[in-house]
Amino acid sequence: MSRSREFGIAPGIMPAGPRNAITDVTGVKVGHVTLSSRDINTGVTAIIPQPGDLFGDKLTAAVEVINGFGKSAGLVQVAELGTLETPILLTNTFGVGTCSNALIRWAISQRPDIGRETSTVNPVVCECNDGVLSDIQAMAVTEQDAMRAIEAAGQDVAEGSVGAGTGMIAFGFKGGIGTASRQILLQGSAHVLGALVLANFGKAGDLVLPDGRRPDPRIMAEAEKGSIIVVLATDLPLDHRQLARVCRRAGAGIARLGAFYGNGSGDIVLGFTTCNRVPHHPKADVCQLERMADRRMDDAFRAACEATQEAILNAMCAATAVEGRNGATRPLLSDWLRDGQNTGTSEPL
Amino acid sequence: MSRSREFGIAPGIMPAGPRNAITDVTGVKVGHVTLSSRDINTGVTAIIPQPGDLFGDKLTAAVEVINGFGKSAGLVQVAELGTLETPILLTNTFGVGTCSNALIRWAISQRPDIGRETSTVNPVVCECNDGVLSDIQAMAVTEQDAMRAIEAAGQDVAEGSVGAGTGMIAFGFKGGIGTASRQILLQGSAHVLGALVLANFGKAGDLVLPDGRRPDPRIMAEAEKGSIIVVLATDLPLDHRQLARVCRRAGAGIARLGAFYGNGSGDIVLGFTTCNRVPHHPKADVCQLERMADRRMDDAFRAACEATQEAILNAMCAATAVEGRNGATRPLLSDWLRDGQNTGTSEPL
Amino acid sequence: MSRSREFGIAPGIMPAGPRNAITDVTGVKVGHVTLSSRDINTGVTAIIPQPGDLFGDKLTAAVEVINGFGKSAGLVQVAELGTLETPILLTNTFGVGTCSNALIRWAISQRPDIGRETSTVNPVVCECNDGVLSDIQAMAVTEQDAMRAIEAAGQDVAEGSVGAGTGMIAFGFKGGIGTASRQILLQGSAHVLGALVLANFGKAGDLVLPDGRRPDPRIMAEAEKGSIIVVLATDLPLDHRQLARVCRRAGAGIARLGAFYGNGSGDIVLGFTTCNRVPHHPKADVCQLERMADRRMDDAFRAACEATQEAILNAMCAATAVEGRNGATRPLLSDWLRDGQNTGTSEPL
Amino acid sequence: MSRSREFGIAPGIMPAGPRNAITDVTGVKVGHVTLSSRDINTGVTAIIPQPGDLFGDKLTAAVEVINGFGKSAGLVQVAELGTLETPILLTNTFGVGTCSNALIRWAISQRPDIGRETSTVNPVVCECNDGVLSDIQAMAVTEQDAMRAIEAAGQDVAEGSVGAGTGMIAFGFKGGIGTASRQILLQGSAHVLGALVLANFGKAGDLVLPDGRRPDPRIMAEAEKGSIIVVLATDLPLDHRQLARVCRRAGAGIARLGAFYGNGSGDIVLGFTTCNRVPHHPKADVCQLERMADRRMDDAFRAACEATQEAILNAMCAATAVEGRNGATRPLLSDWLRDGQNTGTSEPL
Repeated sequence: MSRSREFGIAPGIMPAGPRNAITDVTGVKVGHVTLSSRDINTGVTAIIPQPGDLFGDKLTAAVEVINGFGKSAGLVQVAELGTLETPILLTNTFGVGTCSNALIRWAISQRPDIGRETSTVNPVVCECNDGVLSDIQAMAVTEQDAMRAIEAAGQDVAEGSVGAGTGMIAFGFKGGIGTASRQILLQGSAHVLGALVLANFGKAGDLVLPDGRRPDPRIMAEAEKGSIIVVLATDLPLDHRQLARVCRRAGAGIARLGAFYGNGSGDIVLGFTTCNRVPHHPKADVCQLERMADRRMDDAFRAACEATQEAILNAMCAATAVEGRNGATRPLLSDWLRDGQNTGTSEPL
Repeated sequence: MSRSREFGIAPGIMPAGPRNAITDVTGVKVGHVTLSSRDINTGVTAIIPQPGDLFGDKLTAAVEVINGFGKSAGLVQVAELGTLETPILLTNTFGVGTCSNALIRWAISQRPDIGRETSTVNPVVCECNDGVLSDIQAMAVTEQDAMRAIEAAGQDVAEGSVGAGTGMIAFGFKGGIGTASRQILLQGSAHVLGALVLANFGKAGDLVLPDGRRPDPRIMAEAEKGSIIVVLATDLPLDHRQLARVCRRAGAGIARLGAFYGNGSGDIVLGFTTCNRVPHHPKADVCQLERMADRRMDDAFRAACEATQEAILNAMCAATAVEGRNGATRPLLSDWLRDGQNTGTSEPL
Repeated sequence: MSRSREFGIAPGIMPAGPRNAITDVTGVKVGHVTLSSRDINTGVTAIIPQPGDLFGDKLTAAVEVINGFGKSAGLVQVAELGTLETPILLTNTFGVGTCSNALIRWAISQRPDIGRETSTVNPVVCECNDGVLSDIQAMAVTEQDAMRAIEAAGQDVAEGSVGAGTGMIAFGFKGGIGTASRQILLQGSAHVLGALVLANFGKAGDLVLPDGRRPDPRIMAEAEKGSIIVVLATDLPLDHRQLARVCRRAGAGIARLGAFYGNGSGDIVLGFTTCNRVPHHPKADVCQLERMADRRMDDAFRAACEATQEAILNAMCAATAVEGRNGATRPLLSDWLRDGQNTGTSEPL
Repeated sequence: MSRSREFGIAPGIMPAGPRNAITDVTGVKVGHVTLSSRDINTGVTAIIPQPGDLFGDKLTAAVEVINGFGKSAGLVQVAELGTLETPILLTNTFGVGTCSNALIRWAISQRPDIGRETSTVNPVVCECNDGVLSDIQAMAVTEQDAMRAIEAAGQDVAEGSVGAGTGMIAFGFKGGIGTASRQILLQGSAHVLGALVLANFGKAGDLVLPDGRRPDPRIMAEAEKGSIIVVLATDLPLDHRQLARVCRRAGAGIARLGAFYGNGSGDIVLGFTTCNRVPHHPKADVCQLERMADRRMDDAFRAACEATQEAILNAMCAATAVEGRNGATRPLLSDWLRDGQNTGTSEPL
């Protein structure tokens, strides 16, 4: 499993965090469950935004719908209330209902008052369509798979053809899960913004590397109909309005790689900060929060853009070969970078 | 089971359709499955927007999120693409995942190419929280229940404590399912706009009848945290932009009854027209559609407002007594209208 | 000049502030310039959100576009940045450009660094169309008029046919400027939310009073094409997301009077809080702010709804007769309330 | 005055139109008025979307607010009604009010019924801040300047330091006006999508050319606070929803050049189609329109992305030297491309 920087590709100018991963944000964990057997190449990826009682102590969160051709769960409430109160699950398009059910049961197991003594819980699940490499009609993901992904979560993030990324495709190459991060100094103290992507987007032939090279997967170009989910985590003191603006900049990172948010590509960004927690039962009617000055927003915007761009490249560099249903496969960007780049096209886009 | 007009309450000035129901729109059908046993008082309501292959011949649709404190499925894609391609299911908050799964399987059963030879399908499910009268943690709704609601659909619409409305509460009274419609003349030909609501909103004491009376359920006022789902159907020639504007006016109908879209009330409007169908595989790159002139929009706006207001009143008038978990009950508006109105408050709001 | 409560009409259940006006929010001032001569019946109304350097010490603000059929200035930036940095001017539709210019010059006069040493300023101007009673083509409002309205601002708010309200019409009656307020207790300390409206909306025959009476202006019903601008001020500790949600509830206040946001009615709500000021040149990269718990939002929502409803009634009750271009006039609601109510219709809406 | 292709830079893969300009869309015209004297380097650019009575026969239009830090006029109504009924004027930030007034008078001169016998008109004006090179406090643009820009409009589009672009800066280089176009085949017939940009955005050092080169203006990097306005014109049969989605893709074109929609950069996209005209007084309540199948949207999306990217490069390549207030100047990208590229940085971004 390789990363983009091993190929000399390090987009942007900001320094990466120590892991160059979303888990550089203290407390964030990621877990995968991978399902691979015959026609099934799918899975679940869980992002645990913080340890502890997420329902009782919610996170400030926001959403940017770049292109709403997608079937995610929970986004409407995040946009309205600006809070996240469960882990985020990523899976295939037809696994959203089951993963939602799993998150509800997980939340109730932690907080038996949910839905009985207090309000209900808002499960957040995002998805891409892995139907080329996996039989999505099988609805193979179970609630147990979702639970196992949550339980498997840790600070080391496997990338490429794992978890929800198992059957994904990007720019005609094998896609999947990738992550990256950027550091930001604020009044002398170190902050970090990390991205994790489920990369399943981009038309074959459209990919542009930061140095202008255009890797050609040499396959029939399909319509851009994959989708990408971007999860941004940070410890910056942002409010909901600011976080929504940060999420929007992930779109710039996607576009820098040559995509244009194709008609069939459900491009969704979900962001949260570990600062400014929101208690379910606040002790007082008024609480204090911290907010970064808008004049410093460009650092957060650039970080969101760069981390997204590099996370996508990491997903593609780390992806390993998957033989899908009907024997379908996709070439690996890592192969092209090692061997094939002399043979690909190199005209400017 | 009574209707609002039997009590002399007929809000607005436009004529109702023959059934005064959403099924006055030709081809629209509604079905219920009611689950009632001990602590369970919940169900599923299905709105079939048209007969036939909905995925292959989608409907023009739009969404208005009045207050996004809700867990519905499918709204993001409806807002982006302006199409509806499944029946609409209404259920309790924790039944959304299961109903989504049911809609996916139902769609695949009709169109086995979904997710294999063509793109995936976007299930649309909306919900309210019936946790006061039903044990929502039981997650009692099954995929079979959802299928049965679809199969049960017909032109006669049962109202009140049925289907998804079984355990709902409105303004401190028993709530549930209600429907109403309004007729619109356009260039001499008759059109209709119908509303179906899942009414679970409104704080006790806030209800105002069209004549200014304020029915008092004489219970402890709870926070307004219920939610209302409004489904609007019409055969007017509207495009997506127009339909979204029509949906927004349902909010005026809700407000006229004394509600103010409370913080905890997830108020969602979903509208579709049977005109301007959108083929999944269009025969040509350019199609023709019909659009009503904006100068006539006020008729559609007023109809949306009036039909929503009357549908809510119908839900409350038709509601029958339900004994919920822990013996919880709510008074009936029909009882107040028959007997209790002399004893309720009548100060102007 | 009468107010709604003098006629026994006091919508809602929350207590009004001492002035029952937007100026109950400490530091808020309102000024009018009225232009009346022959065919001209128009003017400018200025809301000064706080004394002092507004550009250097901005207010937290938000916008709700209920119906965007309007030509206001500055709303896009308020929605993005969540700040207000000038007085708010209200005027007729064709006065927006001139009032914007006046605000720019006013801001520069206070802060000569604007546009030279620092960024530019965002003038906020809203409008309604008074073309029935005033010759809007005359573009009669001058920059001096706008300046004079700002200079005239004080705590006493004239209502009815004054300032921007001079030529306005509502529900077939004479409309104009109105204001009202509601008090909210938060952790034992008193807060207030005030509304000021420029009421120029509603179709003749649609008005419903809180007690169910339907005043009939006995004029030919015109299309609802007037517009209403609602300005909400508060000292509650709200952030931008919360304030936007509060603004949305003003729409419920409008709807309770019988309107449905007609196609031609540009219905715009602009809200600000005097809490959580935003410095143009912050001293630090991170600042503290206060936020009300969402569980208390219903008080703010109800206050926005009630204050808007009463402000509109105040505008109509206070309105005095104006003879407009071509001799056009509109009846007075105060006349109907004193004398005519026995003759109007009283069927339930 | 050079264009990007003269330097061998032709981003994308779609064929340009014959002029490679927004005026490749039949009937679209562009005119400039340039104001240059001592401290004043500003102007007005007019885009005439079609000849004839624009108010009587409106265009279908849409808006995408990428970053709302801007002071444009008319966008709210375009977003609501989906129509454009005046020329589009571009100017400096403090010229918006005056240009709005000019458009109102221009519209009245064509249609004396506006505001008297029929509704008012919605002037559309967008802006960038040219305060570094021009004394924006002078408010130098007059209504006559705006009128002259409209009158000067023709099919040949001057680029660079002209009209509204006179004082603009992009990526530390001199910016300004640029245009480009792309051709699209639809059912065998040729269509075109053109872009015109007012480019005043991008931080020095961030520019990336399509081949990966990073031109360095060798100036102190300022905060990204310029803004960019993109106007898209097409003759494709799009409805409002589709056009809004096309507008969003202009953001991908901006991002490909290395920008990330900086906090202070008011990035606005306004699009219109010459198909599906909307009459002010329609002859019937229902009209026919044409709509492109969504499956073909990727062509329009890619065209919007590529045309925007090339229009920006054209603005920068065509820009000529301007000595601004206090002697401020900015280097020319054309100089760098001719001479300086060996000296600039070339690390991958």
